[in-house]
Amino acid sequence: MRMYDCISSKKAGRELSGEEIEYIVRGFTSGEIPDYQMSAFLMAVCLKGMTEQETLSLTMAMAKSGDMLDLSPISGKKADKHSTGGVGDKTTLIVGPIVASLGVAVAKMSGRGLGHTGGTIDKLESFPGFQTGLSEEAFFSQVNKIKLAVIAQTANLAPADKKIYALRDVTATVDNMSLIASSIMSKKLAAGADVIVLDVKAGSGAFMKTKEDAIALAEMMTKIGNGAGRQTCAVVTDMSQPLGYCIGNILEVQEAIEALHGKGAKDLMDASYTLAAQMLLGAGRAVDFKSGYELAETAVKDGSAFEKFCEFIAAQGGDVSYAREPEKFPQAAVKREVRAKKDGYIGAMQTEEIGLASLVLGAGRETKESSVDYSAGIRMCIKTGDFVAKGDIIALLYAGNEAKAAAAEERFLAAITLSEEPVEKSSHVLAIL
Amino acid sequence: MRMYDCISSKKAGRELSGEEIEYIVRGFTSGEIPDYQMSAFLMAVCLKGMTEQETLSLTMAMAKSGDMLDLSPISGKKADKHSTGGVGDKTTLIVGPIVASLGVAVAKMSGRGLGHTGGTIDKLESFPGFQTGLSEEAFFSQVNKIKLAVIAQTANLAPADKKIYALRDVTATVDNMSLIASSIMSKKLAAGADVIVLDVKAGSGAFMKTKEDAIALAEMMTKIGNGAGRQTCAVVTDMSQPLGYCIGNILEVQEAIEALHGKGAKDLMDASYTLAAQMLLGAGRAVDFKSGYELAETAVKDGSAFEKFCEFIAAQGGDVSYAREPEKFPQAAVKREVRAKKDGYIGAMQTEEIGLASLVLGAGRETKESSVDYSAGIRMCIKTGDFVAKGDIIALLYAGNEAKAAAAEERFLAAITLSEEPVEKSSHVLAIL
Repeated sequence: MRMYDCISSKKAGRELSGEEIEYIVRGFTSGEIPDYQMSAFLMAVCLKGMTEQETLSLTMAMAKSGDMLDLSPISGKKADKHSTGGVGDKTTLIVGPIVASLGVAVAKMSGRGLGHTGGTIDKLESFPGFQTGLSEEAFFSQVNKIKLAVIAQTANLAPADKKIYALRDVTATVDNMSLIASSIMSKKLAAGADVIVLDVKAGSGAFMKTKEDAIALAEMMTKIGNGAGRQTCAVVTDMSQPLGYCIGNILEVQEAIEALHGKGAKDLMDASYTLAAQMLLGAGRAVDFKSGYELAETAVKDGSAFEKFCEFIAAQGGDVSYAREPEKFPQAAVKREVRAKKDGYIGAMQTEEIGLASLVLGAGRETKESSVDYSAGIRMCIKTGDFVAKGDIIALLYAGNEAKAAAAEERFLAAITLSEEPVEKSSHVLAIL
Repeated sequence: MRMYDCISSKKAGRELSGEEIEYIVRGFTSGEIPDYQMSAFLMAVCLKGMTEQETLSLTMAMAKSGDMLDLSPISGKKADKHSTGGVGDKTTLIVGPIVASLGVAVAKMSGRGLGHTGGTIDKLESFPGFQTGLSEEAFFSQVNKIKLAVIAQTANLAPADKKIYALRDVTATVDNMSLIASSIMSKKLAAGADVIVLDVKAGSGAFMKTKEDAIALAEMMTKIGNGAGRQTCAVVTDMSQPLGYCIGNILEVQEAIEALHGKGAKDLMDASYTLAAQMLLGAGRAVDFKSGYELAETAVKDGSAFEKFCEFIAAQGGDVSYAREPEKFPQAAVKREVRAKKDGYIGAMQTEEIGLASLVLGAGRETKESSVDYSAGIRMCIKTGDFVAKGDIIALLYAGNEAKAAAAEERFLAAITLSEEPVEKSSHVLAIL
């Protein structure tokens, strides 16, 4: 087999065999196939596409390129949830405890934030003492005991994907549905869950700008997951504005705690219940979506989800008093009010820009080496469709110093449009697959 | 400017500016732009195409990446002829002397053969003593004196093309019309001639398999040449069978000498007169194609072309007695007769395979480092459309040993089809542009 012929076939629009795709992934990962051949191949894939079978083969080959986690020491079905990356998305902090409180195991490996999107690990590390570096044994034992653990990724999951992604990132070959789907799913398959619920974001803050594209990606990933023998389903949610009101680590933890008390923003509650319902359904804990949704609502209402959250924070060494008294979290040195410049209805938001404004405040990482200011971030006071009068506070910016706050304010304001005409409020959950 | 954005633009099918293309060529040649970005870009070019303007910009940028030869020390218009590579193509050896004998300067840098096509330099080096490594001064002075010199390429012509071609060769990005045209024309522009006549081959032995593709490539190259201020025209010729009867260095030299005596194969004579006519026309030595053609015929008939050939061989140190008595050239150790296995009409030939059979005999180079057996090669006795009876000799194979001859015979026979139905004889010159 020769890489030249594989490139040539894909360039001509032909379907590659499973053996050819395995050869490409193995050869590139080992360094036998050079970057320059792989990038030509990836460009051909972007412009000629891949069939379902090719996409599944690619996903499996990348999943098998590193550790394939064996979660069998954990009893029962293991459910996992994956978001394609959004601004203000703290649903893992809410959904994990809900589902675990209802008896479904959630053994999650999570990432740190990068660029305009936050990461669950960063948020959890807002709790003093919280440990994300558990051994495999401790990880399994915690899930068996309390049904929930979230740790930072330590296993060598899908190294082929990592290497391929790094190349795609510098050769303008990121935006192909098959490549995106296989990248996400290879890691999910390697992470070992039996039930995979995908939260595919659509809109200005997401990779998929339209609902249609997001549904197509969701369908492709669902097919891959099921094709690989995992129970997989998906939810498409709106990212044309941030989820909930808060962006930034401590701010999002505080908002998640409010949500676990049933007092979260409407979109955040709906997203959390919907994802939880899908996980409960997949794990056989609910007979249908509706009853799963109701179970989730009840777990919040009766306090069991919040108690599970506290148990989880404590189990990983976090100071649980911060969960019970979230006002204990340190506050940012600077708090800047952003006011509306004129009357109007809140129109479209450039969600990615809002994420970048929070990065400017210090809440995120520009590079993997950057450190994070846990108390920095944005508390928004508006949702799309809201009417504001000139001078109304539309957001509070939290930062370590005035310069950052001023720079972020400009960026934030530029991301918000005020319309003279009323703007329709959109629903957050766009599709359930 | 960022290479990422250039890749992205081309991937989206947008036209790049001249500045962007210059940036890419300069950056890649200097090593600033890595191979993996360039190969992704080249694949996008293959699948999305380039406009005329982009192709001209690319050609100019590659031409300017190294030495731009200044032929102004040579008086009068300098005419050059370039073939896209064929099997049995010895026209330079015939056309050069014809044109020079009519007073038009031919200052040619030529290459060695590689793969299934031969090179003029190898053929000339069949003459004992022939020097292809002249200094620039000696080169200019010889052309001023006798109107003709052919030397091996020493100047650093279009290094960007060399580097880009090496990458295209391993990333399946060779077969794009704009990339092919710009690669050829960048070297021609850098080589400095005022008049450029292109011989674009079509058929099984050529890069362009159909007449239509060859015409399209010829038109593109002609536009580039004229766009760059050089008088450029093209001829499209048939490569669905080798040109003339002989393949191999000494065999081709002997055939060229016969042609200079007016006794060459019909296709070879027609090709030579046509190319010469275009050069004479371009240089202003003929008023129209027809009178150019007649001038060329006369130069052969009255012996002035052959005398110019002898003068040229002698000027570069070659033993001219071999030109006057071509039977003096050494003969191959082994001469093998290939006979028809049945009665029939000679049908389609796989010309590239015939070229490869001659490579097996030792006549060509598999890699740049291979040495050449000057006396090896094939003397064919047939042309497409000829009738042969079972047992007729259809070719003579010349090699250093029996093993090579036997291996080549098999390959040669497989490349020839015998048809029961009469096969039409095609004309060699397919189009004059």
